[in-house]
Amino acid sequence: MNRALSIRSRKKDDHAKEASKHTFSISTLRGMHQAELSKKLFKLIKTENHCIEAYETAGRERLSIASQLSDWGEATTDDAVSDISDKIGVIMSEIGEQEDLFAQNLEDYRAILKQIRNIEASVQPSRDQKVKISDEIQKLKYKEPSSPKLVTLEQELVRAEAQNLVAEAQLTNITRQKIKEAYDLHFAATIERAEKQIILAKYGRRLLNLLDDTPVVPGDVRQPFAQAGEARQVLADAEQELQRWEPHLEPIHSNAGGLGANLMPMDDRSTRATSEAPDPIATPVPTEKPAAEAQGTHLEQATA
Amino acid sequence: MNRALSIRSRKKDDHAKEASKHTFSISTLRGMHQAELSKKLFKLIKTENHCIEAYETAGRERLSIASQLSDWGEATTDDAVSDISDKIGVIMSEIGEQEDLFAQNLEDYRAILKQIRNIEASVQPSRDQKVKISDEIQKLKYKEPSSPKLVTLEQELVRAEAQNLVAEAQLTNITRQKIKEAYDLHFAATIERAEKQIILAKYGRRLLNLLDDTPVVPGDVRQPFAQAGEARQVLADAEQELQRWEPHLEPIHSNAGGLGANLMPMDDRSTRATSEAPDPIATPVPTEKPAAEAQGTHLEQATA
Repeated sequence: MNRALSIRSRKKDDHAKEASKHTFSISTLRGMHQAELSKKLFKLIKTENHCIEAYETAGRERLSIASQLSDWGEATTDDAVSDISDKIGVIMSEIGEQEDLFAQNLEDYRAILKQIRNIEASVQPSRDQKVKISDEIQKLKYKEPSSPKLVTLEQELVRAEAQNLVAEAQLTNITRQKIKEAYDLHFAATIERAEKQIILAKYGRRLLNLLDDTPVVPGDVRQPFAQAGEARQVLADAEQELQRWEPHLEPIHSNAGGLGANLMPMDDRSTRATSEAPDPIATPVPTEKPAAEAQGTHLEQATA
Repeated sequence: MNRALSIRSRKKDDHAKEASKHTFSISTLRGMHQAELSKKLFKLIKTENHCIEAYETAGRERLSIASQLSDWGEATTDDAVSDISDKIGVIMSEIGEQEDLFAQNLEDYRAILKQIRNIEASVQPSRDQKVKISDEIQKLKYKEPSSPKLVTLEQELVRAEAQNLVAEAQLTNITRQKIKEAYDLHFAATIERAEKQIILAKYGRRLLNLLDDTPVVPGDVRQPFAQAGEARQVLADAEQELQRWEPHLEPIHSNAGGLGANLMPMDDRSTRATSEAPDPIATPVPTEKPAAEAQGTHLEQATA
């Protein structure tokens, strides 16, 4: 593989600092007890957890800022600034909720990665067993070439190899299926957050245009704010467009529909597109989503 | 103002916990030394700093995860998984860079909020002075109604009131101008991150479709990965579309062009749209942007 076409070649320069950030943390010490095969994914899943926490923090702080902005506007005792800052606060709260919903969707993607990690961990003993028996045979052949135990060990090795063949097939089947499922979900969540925040930011900009910033001379009194109705309409429009939002994704095609309960192909294989379901996020891993319910509530309450 | 149409009415229930999060921190103790008038914005600017730090963390962790994903893929010794995971890592690195660029743009917006906070802080003494002289006059009128000092104080009050009229005009002029500028920048940054991450996620999904997840039976050998060229092309297309990206924003109109150096209207007022410049982010507050240079480098290096 051509290293110049990959991210791998640059990891030592670019990401060495980031990658080693948690080297001495408990997370990584725990990682030492993981099977060799699942160590890398174990660590990745931990790092993803830090990333998700950062998005949760960002969403929480955004909600707090929205509320502070509204309070500040009220304290200016300037009608226009008060009304517009309050409504921009509503838009920002929704942006914060979307950040939190994104974090929850990433949790679902993370749960799928754990399925790969788990099968990796479960395949490790099968590999170890094969190696262990081979080693015993080699040692015995050297020390006691005519030992009757050799025959037993050879039979054991055949059984271990057969078992390992099954385990390795299960591993590749699950890995390929789940890695597609995981990043299907990840990218769909990225697009969902982005599209919804674009809607919100667009209406936020319209609100700004309702605030007249023509400078006044000392003693001048600002005209009363006449755009309150228009501002309310902007929020109502934002709410409507956000509610009408639907995912429009290029489907990810999967042939893993033919995977049986034994993690091996069934006879009747069928192709399916994992993203053709109406909600590509909720479908693969249905979980509780409190924030999904919170979505739109700021706008709903503001435009009720 | 109708409280039901606003975010203010709900702050005690929804955001009380978030808002009080930093109550006992040094930031807030410092806030106590701020002028009364600039306290709210002072706190908001602090909270925005926490929010920006969260995005920086998210971006950094995303870069680390991208690199870990690539390493994991290589360790699977599965050609197809190795190639696709490496290229998804490249896409994810770019998504992480966009998160960091977003954080930097938020820093610029935060710098504009500081300009409002600063004028708020500078107007406070003028208000205090007016109140102080009025109080002295009231006290003296009660205690010593015929004091000759009363005339001097009345003259001082007239001067203080005139000075305060100027200060209040400067305050409203700057506040309205800068609040529009600040959130113009904020929402433009939100849209920029969103549009660029949509491009990246879309190509990430195309990469996933190049990975065949048809299950195999034990002993089957996977076909060699034949889509390496196609995968490289997907990255090249992503890079090209990202480089072609341009902001398409509804302009925010401003009449603050008539604001003179004394923060009062000049004679020749002119209307300008702050967002009509080719780069709406960099124009209002030109600052050093190291991450802006990093943008696209993952894709460039990967498709060089």
